[in-house]
Amino acid sequence: MRRFIVGVMGSGEGATPDSVAKALELGMLIAQEGWVVLTGGRDVGVMRAVNQGAKKIAGSLTVGILPSAATIPSPDVDIVIVTDMHQARNNINVLSSDVVVACGYGGPGTVSEIALALKAGKSVILLGADAASVAYFQRLGKRQIHVALEAHAVIAKIKELRRE
Amino acid sequence: MRRFIVGVMGSGEGATPDSVAKALELGMLIAQEGWVVLTGGRDVGVMRAVNQGAKKIAGSLTVGILPSAATIPSPDVDIVIVTDMHQARNNINVLSSDVVVACGYGGPGTVSEIALALKAGKSVILLGADAASVAYFQRLGKRQIHVALEAHAVIAKIKELRRE
Amino acid sequence: MRRFIVGVMGSGEGATPDSVAKALELGMLIAQEGWVVLTGGRDVGVMRAVNQGAKKIAGSLTVGILPSAATIPSPDVDIVIVTDMHQARNNINVLSSDVVVACGYGGPGTVSEIALALKAGKSVILLGADAASVAYFQRLGKRQIHVALEAHAVIAKIKELRRE
Amino acid sequence: MRRFIVGVMGSGEGATPDSVAKALELGMLIAQEGWVVLTGGRDVGVMRAVNQGAKKIAGSLTVGILPSAATIPSPDVDIVIVTDMHQARNNINVLSSDVVVACGYGGPGTVSEIALALKAGKSVILLGADAASVAYFQRLGKRQIHVALEAHAVIAKIKELRRE
Repeated sequence: MRRFIVGVMGSGEGATPDSVAKALELGMLIAQEGWVVLTGGRDVGVMRAVNQGAKKIAGSLTVGILPSAATIPSPDVDIVIVTDMHQARNNINVLSSDVVVACGYGGPGTVSEIALALKAGKSVILLGADAASVAYFQRLGKRQIHVALEAHAVIAKIKELRRE
Repeated sequence: MRRFIVGVMGSGEGATPDSVAKALELGMLIAQEGWVVLTGGRDVGVMRAVNQGAKKIAGSLTVGILPSAATIPSPDVDIVIVTDMHQARNNINVLSSDVVVACGYGGPGTVSEIALALKAGKSVILLGADAASVAYFQRLGKRQIHVALEAHAVIAKIKELRRE
Repeated sequence: MRRFIVGVMGSGEGATPDSVAKALELGMLIAQEGWVVLTGGRDVGVMRAVNQGAKKIAGSLTVGILPSAATIPSPDVDIVIVTDMHQARNNINVLSSDVVVACGYGGPGTVSEIALALKAGKSVILLGADAASVAYFQRLGKRQIHVALEAHAVIAKIKELRRE
Repeated sequence: MRRFIVGVMGSGEGATPDSVAKALELGMLIAQEGWVVLTGGRDVGVMRAVNQGAKKIAGSLTVGILPSAATIPSPDVDIVIVTDMHQARNNINVLSSDVVVACGYGGPGTVSEIALALKAGKSVILLGADAASVAYFQRLGKRQIHVALEAHAVIAKIKELRRE
């Protein structure tokens, strides 16, 4: 009964057009698999785009873990979880995800989520990350770190991880 | 797009047969309205029963906010949110609920949730509470506190609150 | 080496003159025993007063657990812990206290702290509480609940609890 | 009245002898300045060592922010704050520190703390970090990141930051 959840992390205000485009496609692809999309829930950047993508698919389900009781969520979030604990909620984001995807080159918030995911023993897929980030996190996370160049490869990797 | 969420709080191990029966019925009725059921997610007492009730209805959706990464959720929870912050997650339970229902005579955990819900400005419906609890919380929460004797009355009250 | 910590909970903006006076005296008495005062850290009501009282005593130590990164702490707090998790920090307040004192008739925030303290197995001393609150919490917390009419009695009760 | 707090982050079980030695010296030096040492509070690795160092100095004060109610704190922690929120407490560690020092090459927990500190606008001093970590965090944190080769340089850097 418990639904499979893919957490997608990435920049808000600082997201690049490329990472937003990838997030939009990724949201569609996750939803097509029948998986749930989980984000930090804000209406900006990667979070907004992945939710938009998911809601293009009938029957999709999106969860947003909001930092503050005052945060306005992305309108494409179905289930709004209000933590009011700001960046401490990053740990909830990753603990609630069966697998974590970091989309684009993230800022400190995304880096904290990658690190917390590794600490929690989760698999992390870096989508469209730059070479320096890939090298750094592969050293830190070893076999927990996976790399994808585009959204389809994320889905293939998740399927592979689920078979293990 | 954002779904309407009813948080149902109540005892785990210490739940009475009456409060479990009320929770089961309440879960069905909430789901029949198309609303989402949110609980603390554990597989015991009021939490287990309200999720069981909801999942008798096709298309229902249940969310469980787990205290610990080690907690085994109720099998009737669709969306498992893992906080790993134990009783501090009680505040997330109430902030994420559009309205809070306390089912039966709860112990300290439930009382903390009623109090946190009042603090957050939420409406709280006491279902099947004893007279002393009703009197105490009406004094504490004034117009935020509502009383219901059975599950149908909770639904009627929520509809009334939504019209306001 | 670990210092003995007395958590003092109570109203902020809504504190009565009587509860503020009791908190001031209580802070002095706790500090005279060489114990640490722990509060929610805000510069108002019971929190402000108990810290003021403690800092009248040379060598005293006060800890404030702030709800928000934007909260201005009481100037009499020595050690400022910033949680930025708002009411969820109430659980940290009680878990970090060896014994919890609720000063005056508190609002929902204080009630949540009493309930969370009981849940955590802590002893709670109600100082200057009204009869209805005493009756309610004695039923909820049984032998964990103690009653004091004035600040000196709190100190005597804590000494008694430490001998057990 | 509010005390100046230096947060020292670093590995627990995986700490190297070199980082433990640096932490011990750093604890002494921080305490000699009259500053408070704040750590994650566990009795292992960098946390244990920095508290040991601080308590060699008369009048020192050490604060430990414990992950779990079941964690046994370092015996050299004076003020034990119990969060019971596991890795989510990392955000409290950095928000409560006026400046954050990462001692040695840390694992994912330490990396999450560096990232959360940057997110919170704090200055971070990397003590004894390897070249790859320095390069990665300088790119991520820019002017918030400072580098020190040994404990004395950390103290000099903090004094410089306080003068700004």
